[in-house]
Amino acid sequence: MTIRAVVWGENVHDRENEVVRSIYPTGMHGCIAAALNADPAISATTATLDQPEHGLSQARLAEADVLTWWGHKAHGAVAEAVVERVADRVWQGMGLIVLHSGHFSKIFKKLMGAPCSLRWREAGEKERVWVINRSHPIAQGLGASFVIGQTEMYGEPFTIPEPLETVFISWYDGGEVFRSGVTFKRGGGRIFYFAPGHEVYPIYHDANVQAVLRNAVRWAANPAPAWADVNKAPNVPADQAPEPIKQQGPRLHAPGEAGYR
Amino acid sequence: MTIRAVVWGENVHDRENEVVRSIYPTGMHGCIAAALNADPAISATTATLDQPEHGLSQARLAEADVLTWWGHKAHGAVAEAVVERVADRVWQGMGLIVLHSGHFSKIFKKLMGAPCSLRWREAGEKERVWVINRSHPIAQGLGASFVIGQTEMYGEPFTIPEPLETVFISWYDGGEVFRSGVTFKRGGGRIFYFAPGHEVYPIYHDANVQAVLRNAVRWAANPAPAWADVNKAPNVPADQAPEPIKQQGPRLHAPGEAGYR
Amino acid sequence: MTIRAVVWGENVHDRENEVVRSIYPTGMHGCIAAALNADPAISATTATLDQPEHGLSQARLAEADVLTWWGHKAHGAVAEAVVERVADRVWQGMGLIVLHSGHFSKIFKKLMGAPCSLRWREAGEKERVWVINRSHPIAQGLGASFVIGQTEMYGEPFTIPEPLETVFISWYDGGEVFRSGVTFKRGGGRIFYFAPGHEVYPIYHDANVQAVLRNAVRWAANPAPAWADVNKAPNVPADQAPEPIKQQGPRLHAPGEAGYR
Amino acid sequence: MTIRAVVWGENVHDRENEVVRSIYPTGMHGCIAAALNADPAISATTATLDQPEHGLSQARLAEADVLTWWGHKAHGAVAEAVVERVADRVWQGMGLIVLHSGHFSKIFKKLMGAPCSLRWREAGEKERVWVINRSHPIAQGLGASFVIGQTEMYGEPFTIPEPLETVFISWYDGGEVFRSGVTFKRGGGRIFYFAPGHEVYPIYHDANVQAVLRNAVRWAANPAPAWADVNKAPNVPADQAPEPIKQQGPRLHAPGEAGYR
Repeated sequence: MTIRAVVWGENVHDRENEVVRSIYPTGMHGCIAAALNADPAISATTATLDQPEHGLSQARLAEADVLTWWGHKAHGAVAEAVVERVADRVWQGMGLIVLHSGHFSKIFKKLMGAPCSLRWREAGEKERVWVINRSHPIAQGLGASFVIGQTEMYGEPFTIPEPLETVFISWYDGGEVFRSGVTFKRGGGRIFYFAPGHEVYPIYHDANVQAVLRNAVRWAANPAPAWADVNKAPNVPADQAPEPIKQQGPRLHAPGEAGYR
Repeated sequence: MTIRAVVWGENVHDRENEVVRSIYPTGMHGCIAAALNADPAISATTATLDQPEHGLSQARLAEADVLTWWGHKAHGAVAEAVVERVADRVWQGMGLIVLHSGHFSKIFKKLMGAPCSLRWREAGEKERVWVINRSHPIAQGLGASFVIGQTEMYGEPFTIPEPLETVFISWYDGGEVFRSGVTFKRGGGRIFYFAPGHEVYPIYHDANVQAVLRNAVRWAANPAPAWADVNKAPNVPADQAPEPIKQQGPRLHAPGEAGYR
Repeated sequence: MTIRAVVWGENVHDRENEVVRSIYPTGMHGCIAAALNADPAISATTATLDQPEHGLSQARLAEADVLTWWGHKAHGAVAEAVVERVADRVWQGMGLIVLHSGHFSKIFKKLMGAPCSLRWREAGEKERVWVINRSHPIAQGLGASFVIGQTEMYGEPFTIPEPLETVFISWYDGGEVFRSGVTFKRGGGRIFYFAPGHEVYPIYHDANVQAVLRNAVRWAANPAPAWADVNKAPNVPADQAPEPIKQQGPRLHAPGEAGYR
Repeated sequence: MTIRAVVWGENVHDRENEVVRSIYPTGMHGCIAAALNADPAISATTATLDQPEHGLSQARLAEADVLTWWGHKAHGAVAEAVVERVADRVWQGMGLIVLHSGHFSKIFKKLMGAPCSLRWREAGEKERVWVINRSHPIAQGLGASFVIGQTEMYGEPFTIPEPLETVFISWYDGGEVFRSGVTFKRGGGRIFYFAPGHEVYPIYHDANVQAVLRNAVRWAANPAPAWADVNKAPNVPADQAPEPIKQQGPRLHAPGEAGYR
């Protein structure tokens, strides 16, 4: 079964900034999609902010197994309705890979329930990404650590909930550390945040980074059927209780009435 | 040091429903606050939906160590600005106790990043609350389990993130189970969800339930100074890096410029 | 790639107890292995206590992707050397499925670092197993819950570390609850504990239970290469540090000396 | 209520190594106990390997709220009976602070169920300890990070179970990172591992390190009554079940018989 990945890109600096344009002539999303498509198990397409519904219609998301998200300058321009829609699909089981400055995207903050803030510095320094759990699916094919020659520093404290698993921690020239690869689950959806990816450096051309992206998409794809009613709160009347019980005492709701929300 | 607790009540069924009114003549919030004030270490006051800013002004929250939240019929009437404000204070370190139907409150869903849905049945059946970790601060003074004679059934799946700790699991006459006491952390804030508390039964008059509420407030109070900048993303210029580094390579941001969000 | 599973059975009551013998003429391990072999992706063989090295030689374990463990009466008869060997393989990446009374096996207690105690009752009562996360790989193909007609009650508190994920929680006729399906990771190894399986009832003949076993074996199989040096503590001399540093100050160890352990 | 802390020291290099002796004339345990006793809420005494029962008799442990553990050269000399006894007390609710080379102590490995291995280098390099959660009780009074001028490098992968909370992560001159402050719970016991503390450097004289030790002892002290039967597996006969049930079907155990272990 091919994993259907949608690579979402904000596509602003990709078009407007000369440095970014020269590094990523097909956009960062184009580069990431090509990296994913190098894996025969993955079929990746792209979607961008400027498309209708940001390229993320209900129909498109319904057929996505995994969504990757890169945004930075235009977080605020993402429509709330699309954010809600993506969250629903994650809860139903779609995987989500949030990249770099996506830590401040509406969708990541919504799914984390936390500030998702961090320290940062744009000084072209070196980052060394350490593999914390080399048996984790997302770490396959990597060495004990790998280097990104020029990076934007992202430093702790990274105000996320305690992760399910910490896969990578980064060391920086300038003295900081960062949990640069962390996993979460929300409903049926698997979520991976990966820090490297500042747009003025050619980070998504890096072989190790591309391996991480492919691994992450494979890991995040949940073959279970969509959890269609994950957001429902079904009433179970007394006469349909698993064990026989009698209706008794006062009640608020008329039989069959939906709950409040 | 006295723990300052604010007991928030929706105060709708408390006024409008005759059964609820007769059980809770001072409102559910009145009953809960009185239960908390039975502990000399706690000083509890109340706030309700119908007050200006729902009784939760910036100044009031700034002086709250712990907020308890009971809402049901009017989740939708809670102003977004107040929800944001409460979330900010939780991230800064204020404790939050979410009660019963508060599982679908805006604030709980925001902090969980998950549907927070469940099965339910209003049949006056029996609930037995099992203590999973009897050494947990929230379980102090309880036996191995305690019974709530008439309850609304809340059943799994409860679509929350994997909790930090599971303190209670409930058994119901009708055959369901529920993780009825679970903890989380978000930023500096400790969060406890406690399931019992349907308004047409006298649950907040129960001695064991009151003990849980007092324990939970004590547990959730974080004596650390408020994490005032938990939501900030400070830039650390190259010349202020912990280790000496040189600014190099292309950059996106002018020196001193704030990041995007 | 076929998953190589070894089904370990204590094989004591299977031989000595007439009830158990009649339910499981090929032993419980025989029944479990047959259930696993119904999945073409799995190739299961058996090993028992009475075999040399309990059937778990170094060579055998080296070729096992997943080990399932059922023991009860003879926990104390399992050789420490075999327990150590199994733990090493789990840390290297072999999956481990611990069944029922295996909660008190040496290997489970060793990997948990906790008492692993529980309440119990052998009264032939009904157990209803609730699926907490229906999108979890181990829950595939099951309904919202399933019933085991006659079971041994295992009740909370179950003194395990907080699980990575709670997949199942059981309800019992007699009023107890139990986290009956929980996952953990240790090193490269995935661990699943599953409570149902008392030997005087035909539980491993149940279709839902067999589905859980197959799902669990698939989930626990880690395709990553064995983490061969997971137990090593490599010294990294100053002249081989990732970043150039100078050896300085006093030191305890001679160059190249191994650490203490 | 004063917190009763027992500071356990191996006391081998403290006596035998001239460098260590000059830094710690009263032993490392002496220095640590003095640091703890600077907090009026803590009453710390010491115990060492060379004492009868390593200074950790049943009676002594029964009166300890928190035990700190520093060992290195003589891990193997610690009696199994004492290790079992300490584990029992942790499960009952005694706090445990494991220091530096204690990552390979018998007690830490037993409670983790994992290899607890790491990379290391003894080159007198600099360590910068980053505070991941500044609202955590163990981080009170510290800045965003603090420096240890000369340290032994401990590097990832640190093969521990996923921590309950990651409080500190360290950066090293030589390019490595390490989760240098992590929490766990086992039964009623709170466990904190703290990495700094190599014996040939004056690390336990450092004001920040001493603050961490005091904070950790306060955090680890669990005021709950000892969970005396945490290791028991009580049988609950059918006629004492919380809900009325009838004994039925075959059974293995005679009424009142203890379970197997």
